[in-house]
Amino acid sequence: MSALPTSQLFDPSDPVFRVHEGGKLGVHATSQLRDATDLSLLYTPGVAQVSLAIAADPTLASAYTSRRNTVAVVSDGTAVLGLGDIGPLAAMPVMEGKAVLFKHFADVDAVPVCMQTGSVDEIVDAVARIAPTYGGINLEDISAPRCFEIERRLQERLDIPVFHDDQHGTAIVALAALINAVQVVDKPLAEVTVVVSGAGAAGVAVSKILLAAGVRDVVVVDSRGVLGPDRDDLAPHKEELRRLTNPRGVTGDIGEALSGADVLIGVSGGTVAERDLLRMAPRAVIFALANPDPEVHPVVAARFAEVVATGRSDFPNQINNVLAFPGIFRGALDSGAGRITEDMKLAAARAIAALVESPTADHVVPSVFDERVAPAVAAAVSALAPGGGRPARA
Amino acid sequence: MSALPTSQLFDPSDPVFRVHEGGKLGVHATSQLRDATDLSLLYTPGVAQVSLAIAADPTLASAYTSRRNTVAVVSDGTAVLGLGDIGPLAAMPVMEGKAVLFKHFADVDAVPVCMQTGSVDEIVDAVARIAPTYGGINLEDISAPRCFEIERRLQERLDIPVFHDDQHGTAIVALAALINAVQVVDKPLAEVTVVVSGAGAAGVAVSKILLAAGVRDVVVVDSRGVLGPDRDDLAPHKEELRRLTNPRGVTGDIGEALSGADVLIGVSGGTVAERDLLRMAPRAVIFALANPDPEVHPVVAARFAEVVATGRSDFPNQINNVLAFPGIFRGALDSGAGRITEDMKLAAARAIAALVESPTADHVVPSVFDERVAPAVAAAVSALAPGGGRPARA
Repeated sequence: MSALPTSQLFDPSDPVFRVHEGGKLGVHATSQLRDATDLSLLYTPGVAQVSLAIAADPTLASAYTSRRNTVAVVSDGTAVLGLGDIGPLAAMPVMEGKAVLFKHFADVDAVPVCMQTGSVDEIVDAVARIAPTYGGINLEDISAPRCFEIERRLQERLDIPVFHDDQHGTAIVALAALINAVQVVDKPLAEVTVVVSGAGAAGVAVSKILLAAGVRDVVVVDSRGVLGPDRDDLAPHKEELRRLTNPRGVTGDIGEALSGADVLIGVSGGTVAERDLLRMAPRAVIFALANPDPEVHPVVAARFAEVVATGRSDFPNQINNVLAFPGIFRGALDSGAGRITEDMKLAAARAIAALVESPTADHVVPSVFDERVAPAVAAAVSALAPGGGRPARA
Repeated sequence: MSALPTSQLFDPSDPVFRVHEGGKLGVHATSQLRDATDLSLLYTPGVAQVSLAIAADPTLASAYTSRRNTVAVVSDGTAVLGLGDIGPLAAMPVMEGKAVLFKHFADVDAVPVCMQTGSVDEIVDAVARIAPTYGGINLEDISAPRCFEIERRLQERLDIPVFHDDQHGTAIVALAALINAVQVVDKPLAEVTVVVSGAGAAGVAVSKILLAAGVRDVVVVDSRGVLGPDRDDLAPHKEELRRLTNPRGVTGDIGEALSGADVLIGVSGGTVAERDLLRMAPRAVIFALANPDPEVHPVVAARFAEVVATGRSDFPNQINNVLAFPGIFRGALDSGAGRITEDMKLAAARAIAALVESPTADHVVPSVFDERVAPAVAAAVSALAPGGGRPARA
């Protein structure tokens, strides 16, 4: 990053910089502070009664503190958007933007927590230590494979949901889109062959949710080729992925994987050549989700596939995590769920898909501004919480 | 705490619980999110430009992230109000209340960070790791003597202000009150003898700021008596305090210390007997700051002293940290100060004192609702920042 001169990157008159001036988040009190009486209730001496009651019964913290509606958006800045390891300060605008989306779409009070990176132990310890402040932890833009262990170990230690959005948000929305896309091309989900290009955070989660949803033939490709029986260079998370996928034992490059494939889901940031796309089955589906530059430009993809989706807002079928994460946390906070289970993720994907009543090639997911989405996802998550989704927030 | 039955502590119909329902803080976006254009500026793809610019020039983070106006109110819940070690969840209502005050009095966006307690190393590491998120760290209700080392080591590691309010907020406001009180009793500050009852966080800071302000004769008393030459049981922070104070080498109990003393400042939470107060000099000053139960009831204290102050809002002369901390951080954030220096603390105290134009026995500090206070404190702090207080926020 530092090789680029600042002058080429920074233009204070650019609308994008003007929108970010002074940051994008503020904090406000939810009760009035008008006089000494208010002060004695909101703060000392009155607040001592509330603190004592919570000390005696910690479950009261969910009703009498901001914890009940607050989610930490945690990043160490090691894998920010497609920009790589740009550090915690440069990650701040992204995490603030995420917090804006949490508030706008699901009335969740989200706060950025941007941290100096470190070992997995250090990150886990720091997040676990501050966790009493929050009702949930949204992990964001943490590099793979560290992100897998950080999420797993945090969830083991904490009794609040820990959700790595780059994995599960992407996976949920991709599955929602695929549920509708296979309807459009008239192929049963259980029968399609899917190639996932990319074995990072999103690739792992997309592959796993597809298997959980009943897809039987998933082949994963990384920058060196298919995760097949001939690979002896695999990191543990890729080794696990190979074990779970590729039932036909495919080997070779992405062209081999795409031979006869029904679906390509790109979450790699690389590109896929037209000669390889030519090998896909008739009535194919291509999701090219790298942002801002899809693995295949949607105009090109449309020559090889009947349904095309990207992460871009200027083409149909925008696959955007914002369809998932606000409702996911809204549902978890409302129901007091201690974790986001695999069943909840599947239910969320199905709830998003169900909002498109008659899927067409240009409409396999709802608009990001469809106000029905977050409540539908929240209800789906909440219904699967222990206690059957009785709203804790009522 | 847990020995008390919850039923005696928790009454949801009590006004204090009603005010705390759902917590006291919310987060909001400072820009509008109306459509896809707004979304593309606030979040992807636009936000990437801002992140890249900050990666190339980290100083831009102060202008283009919420860091510029955000302070973390950090506690591990080990010394909350007078309640002791009640833990991070029970500390939340207090830290939220503090955040409400930050916003109300100085438009600072403060967020609670309540953490599981641990060793000094663990607390320092966790706070330092998340520090990139914030423009300042307000430490709160952390037990002594850990609080001293935590503050010192954090300030050494970070380039943003680290301020333990239980120490310095109390000290600044007590000094402000004393500056005016000695005018009322017509004794020069440099000539008075002061007894500080309590050698915890507040006692240490009050003693040090008095010395810095020119008081020459400070005697500190803890629960075992005067910190005098005969004491061989002193922890390092009390040993340091003994070295700095007690020029006459007083020994014995608080009665000995009060013999002929002009000023008593109680920050102990204990009580002081009338027979000991009887030994004070004519025209004495008593600040009994323990809350909610002062070391001496103000009605009793008035029999022995011409000027009496407490932490209570139902008597004159309320010594309340809220006179200091909002303006302190406002000034530091506006000027980009990397630390709150001793000179800034003195200047803040003098600025608060100066707002009382004609001090009387019942009026040695401004009202906590005096809207001139925070701006005056902010200006005093800002003027001493490197760069001469040019507002960074303009």
